[in-house]
Amino acid sequence: MDVASRIEQALNTAIARSEVAECPPRLAAAMRYAVFPKGARIRPRLCHSVAAACGEDNAAATDAAGAALELLHCASLVHDDLPCFDAADTRRGRPSVHKAFGEPLAVLAGDALIVLAFQTLARIPCASERLATLTLTIANSVGVPSGIVAGQAWECESQIDLAHYHRAKTGALFAAASVAGAAAAGVDAEPWRMLGEKLGEAYQVADDIRDAAADEDEIGKPVGQDLVHGRPSAVLSYGLDGAVQHLHQLVRDAIGAMPPCVNGAELRALMLSEVRRLVPAKLAQFAA
Amino acid sequence: MDVASRIEQALNTAIARSEVAECPPRLAAAMRYAVFPKGARIRPRLCHSVAAACGEDNAAATDAAGAALELLHCASLVHDDLPCFDAADTRRGRPSVHKAFGEPLAVLAGDALIVLAFQTLARIPCASERLATLTLTIANSVGVPSGIVAGQAWECESQIDLAHYHRAKTGALFAAASVAGAAAAGVDAEPWRMLGEKLGEAYQVADDIRDAAADEDEIGKPVGQDLVHGRPSAVLSYGLDGAVQHLHQLVRDAIGAMPPCVNGAELRALMLSEVRRLVPAKLAQFAA
Repeated sequence: MDVASRIEQALNTAIARSEVAECPPRLAAAMRYAVFPKGARIRPRLCHSVAAACGEDNAAATDAAGAALELLHCASLVHDDLPCFDAADTRRGRPSVHKAFGEPLAVLAGDALIVLAFQTLARIPCASERLATLTLTIANSVGVPSGIVAGQAWECESQIDLAHYHRAKTGALFAAASVAGAAAAGVDAEPWRMLGEKLGEAYQVADDIRDAAADEDEIGKPVGQDLVHGRPSAVLSYGLDGAVQHLHQLVRDAIGAMPPCVNGAELRALMLSEVRRLVPAKLAQFAA
Repeated sequence: MDVASRIEQALNTAIARSEVAECPPRLAAAMRYAVFPKGARIRPRLCHSVAAACGEDNAAATDAAGAALELLHCASLVHDDLPCFDAADTRRGRPSVHKAFGEPLAVLAGDALIVLAFQTLARIPCASERLATLTLTIANSVGVPSGIVAGQAWECESQIDLAHYHRAKTGALFAAASVAGAAAAGVDAEPWRMLGEKLGEAYQVADDIRDAAADEDEIGKPVGQDLVHGRPSAVLSYGLDGAVQHLHQLVRDAIGAMPPCVNGAELRALMLSEVRRLVPAKLAQFAA
């Protein structure tokens, strides 16, 4: 089975645990709605690519780690869209979860998706020696002190620490995807953190570029939100062409940070194709 | 160290992970506010009592399991108090988290407390063979299909399944506390589920009684909320004296469900003292 199918199957298996008689059906529906149809799935794809590069020996561990990362990413989108944060009415070109299901179910679906990530990890067969590393790597990338929840919470401070903010808000889950891919394959995982951090920073810059320069139809959500909400943005710091060049440099840094491994070709190709996908076509002339 | 001190110390160690420079200080403050000063800590106390009854052999595992249960309980209170659910302005006699820190930080503190529970479990030293059981036991009691989040989500359905609702909303975390106590001690854990379920049902009934019959000063939160929100309640079903008698029967059932163990005396005493604590003084004459 190819990686894309494995990712969807692992997510489907996880979500299907809510689709039983004991579970409130609207909660189950809100959870499925938050996770399907698929987005770019870039975090699990990174996890799978790193696991393959490291000589994957336990496919179930990679599948579970990839699914956990995506479930946590989807949970963060559901909560970030809530009226008390971004108040986003749309996401991926259709109503956001709280618009479609109401605010209570959006809060609960986010909570349940967070927990489902850890249920998914704890069910990894024959990987007890890897479970603690995988769980801690992924949990630390979401919680305190410097996971994505902490990143979001910097927006509630009067004085924002920009370096911590960016590293936590986007970088943490990318770094975890890279480290978890190596951990799922049973190799020394920490050397893989830098690659994930650089790639995460690249995605944050790409997101800032798309917010400033893409069309709403192209990205399926409202644009210009950084300016509206007064959020820090690479485009505001470097200008549009400077931000595009910075993005390319970050991807080169990520490729340069790849530790020695069994098979790095697929991973290198993934990173290069992502940078093409992420820069809006009309800005391609700024590419370095 | 006595159990109460062990519980507070484990919670303090967990929360202290947020009190570092990388973490937004208001998020850390909101998390500490949600967990301290202490409530009854009945879920970790049950976990510790069961572990002791089973011949505890890994104190760090019990401490971590107890802390994880309490962190998840506190997270559920923070989210349940939000304006989109109970809109509770007070909790434990002071402003609820969203009143004290604002709604965004209340959502994020709840999220971070959920994740912190799993970070705490994953850090258990030398317990890799127990980690999967503990994590899955506790995660299942919070998430889908039938944990406390699912219990809360039944309130969003037009047709509520009362049996599933009660079992999930309160019973699940009590059942997990009992099972996790046994699992932390390394004994066959599932036989301990029934005791926790009965005790959880007793607490739900006690909560209904206090909501209907206690003074606001006595319980530190608004009373009469079940009627206001049209929530199912044992008092509405059985009447006040019938509910008190039902509560006593449930505690007897819980004691009767105790599996054979090394030392059950402390656990039995805990259950009997709890029932005295839970029934408002003015209703003691209804005791069976």
